[in-house]
Amino acid sequence: MAGGGQLARMTQQAAIGLGVSLRVLAGSADDSAAKVVSRARIGDDRSLDDLLSFARGCDVVTFDHEHVPGSHIQKLESSGVPCRPGSAALAHAQDKLVMRERLTAMDVPCPAYVHVPKSAPLRTLEDFARDHGFPLVIKATRGGYDGKGVWVLDALDGAAAGLIDELLSQGVDLMVEEHVPFTRELAAVVARSPYGQGAAYPVVETVQEGGICVEVISPAPGLPAGAAAEAQRLALAVAAELDVVGLLAVELFETRAGLLVNELAMRPHNSGHWTIEGARTSQFEQHLRAVLDLPLGSTEPTAPYTVMANVLGGDDPDVYSRYIHVMAHDPAVKVHMYGKEPRPGRKIGHVTALGDDLADVRERARHAAGYLRWGTRMKEREERR
Amino acid sequence: MAGGGQLARMTQQAAIGLGVSLRVLAGSADDSAAKVVSRARIGDDRSLDDLLSFARGCDVVTFDHEHVPGSHIQKLESSGVPCRPGSAALAHAQDKLVMRERLTAMDVPCPAYVHVPKSAPLRTLEDFARDHGFPLVIKATRGGYDGKGVWVLDALDGAAAGLIDELLSQGVDLMVEEHVPFTRELAAVVARSPYGQGAAYPVVETVQEGGICVEVISPAPGLPAGAAAEAQRLALAVAAELDVVGLLAVELFETRAGLLVNELAMRPHNSGHWTIEGARTSQFEQHLRAVLDLPLGSTEPTAPYTVMANVLGGDDPDVYSRYIHVMAHDPAVKVHMYGKEPRPGRKIGHVTALGDDLADVRERARHAAGYLRWGTRMKEREERR
Repeated sequence: MAGGGQLARMTQQAAIGLGVSLRVLAGSADDSAAKVVSRARIGDDRSLDDLLSFARGCDVVTFDHEHVPGSHIQKLESSGVPCRPGSAALAHAQDKLVMRERLTAMDVPCPAYVHVPKSAPLRTLEDFARDHGFPLVIKATRGGYDGKGVWVLDALDGAAAGLIDELLSQGVDLMVEEHVPFTRELAAVVARSPYGQGAAYPVVETVQEGGICVEVISPAPGLPAGAAAEAQRLALAVAAELDVVGLLAVELFETRAGLLVNELAMRPHNSGHWTIEGARTSQFEQHLRAVLDLPLGSTEPTAPYTVMANVLGGDDPDVYSRYIHVMAHDPAVKVHMYGKEPRPGRKIGHVTALGDDLADVRERARHAAGYLRWGTRMKEREERR
Repeated sequence: MAGGGQLARMTQQAAIGLGVSLRVLAGSADDSAAKVVSRARIGDDRSLDDLLSFARGCDVVTFDHEHVPGSHIQKLESSGVPCRPGSAALAHAQDKLVMRERLTAMDVPCPAYVHVPKSAPLRTLEDFARDHGFPLVIKATRGGYDGKGVWVLDALDGAAAGLIDELLSQGVDLMVEEHVPFTRELAAVVARSPYGQGAAYPVVETVQEGGICVEVISPAPGLPAGAAAEAQRLALAVAAELDVVGLLAVELFETRAGLLVNELAMRPHNSGHWTIEGARTSQFEQHLRAVLDLPLGSTEPTAPYTVMANVLGGDDPDVYSRYIHVMAHDPAVKVHMYGKEPRPGRKIGHVTALGDDLADVRERARHAAGYLRWGTRMKEREERR
């Protein structure tokens, strides 16, 4: 797995069970996954040399994130290294414009969008605003993550023009999308193997704050069975059409008019962390099974409701001292920490609760995640006084 | 964790979730756990120097097996290293005679037993046989495991006398126990923290073949609630009385007259592997929580029935090629492999199935474990032709 973040870290838990030797190419020995595998390879996953050297010991290469350049993955492939997902599929998770064009060609419902050319960008935006109204959602076509690379413009004033000009002059390729009046955000996580087998997890609701997912509820409460099946069908169709191998997470907007695709990710995804306890097969095991071309595991839920809440870093880095309260308060909540230095707002872990009563399960997950972030919360309260 | 076997390996899966850095002292880089942790310390866990050097980097030391000499653990303790469980508790898992004497003093029901002295051993055995009949169960007081160190004598004939004479002359310390006419074997796994908190898992049935556990059924089918509660109470009492910290597995004989204690283990135990999927908190996480003095996790079962079947090595070492069948046949069965070289009869992994229908769950677990051992089974069939 190229990349040593928390996705690789949690994949290691699944690899241990499968008896599969997971090798990790990590930027540093302090990376989340590097701390929990035998002999992590320290290197740069955006360097072709490092990738080629790393891949020599691997039967198959997969990815912890989308930031390995597609041209490098193509070179790995042409040198005979099986990359799963492959470069052709990954392009759609690496470049939002490529993704939009392909999905639109497939008649998959997406927000209206258009590329923002370097020449006359403002005229393009003005035309787009005339058709679709404000706010405008400006996106970097490549390199975004967790709300980074997204700007919302309420008007095309001087400040907006200055921002666009600055981004384009920095070489950031931009597109604009309509601001979708969604009722909530959903995610459909599916897996697909080289053999062509597909497996779909229950469709979840994702709750975002400041562009960061803070809570995932499985299954999405009150989602009509037909809409859930449609989201799964759509995700499986995208996986098949794009020849995705491994996991595909499709982030969706639920609107009064139906579902629209927001983003794609081709790896284990934050919206699937709940599966570690909440599904018979975790998304991490599923990703390994898919990239190893093993039969896929059951996606059956293990409880009526599972809620995952992300743990964001607070001001107090001593998260461990707060385990005592969280574990004593709720012996059934599951804590997953990523071995990352807490910084305010950084995802450093997640907690999972499950049970029959959704309100209770949500409260338990929120309480545990909130308490583990306690430093910041307390400081915020003090500042408000 | 001193020792690099599969128990340390599966403890690493739990440590990753808790964000705890598990260090392992393993005999070789090829050991089951050494393959899945960062920078395993390679050394001899029966060498005091290696233990002291290893312990310097640890907040607390715990054990993958019972074979670290008690005197070494005492020296670790006197040098200020917290060992959990401690040497005084562990002595009862390391020496069956010490265990029997202590449990008997606690009025815990045990099989009749007596030490076999080096002088006049046969007279002792004859006297014991007169009182308790044949067969006699001869046990090495120390060093046994998985049926090793146990001999069943149907008579005190020349062969038996020769065996006893040879064992004693090799310096093996022996005891004799009555052969208990048990109806089945059970196990009660509990955890205890330094704070004194206790937690008990459902009592399970363990099915042995040739002294090796091949199947564990949770909960023990048809066990009256009173007997289950009594087994849990007994295990918690033993844990408290012996000041056990971490897990305690109490192996029990179920007889028409009630429960008798067979063996004790103070670590994650084969009879608790089912908890990875079958309980809200796995025994591995529970052991870590206990030795770190964190509040214990919920032992609530996640399904009406969970069955674990051990995967024993067959003649064909290519177990991986058989994953395809096992996973395609049953997408919900969970495979746990230990990264060990398959040798006939060696425990190389386990599988877990869970559900509502016990007969179905048992059949699923047996099928998967049997198929993974396929090489031997097929050869045996061919030989029978």
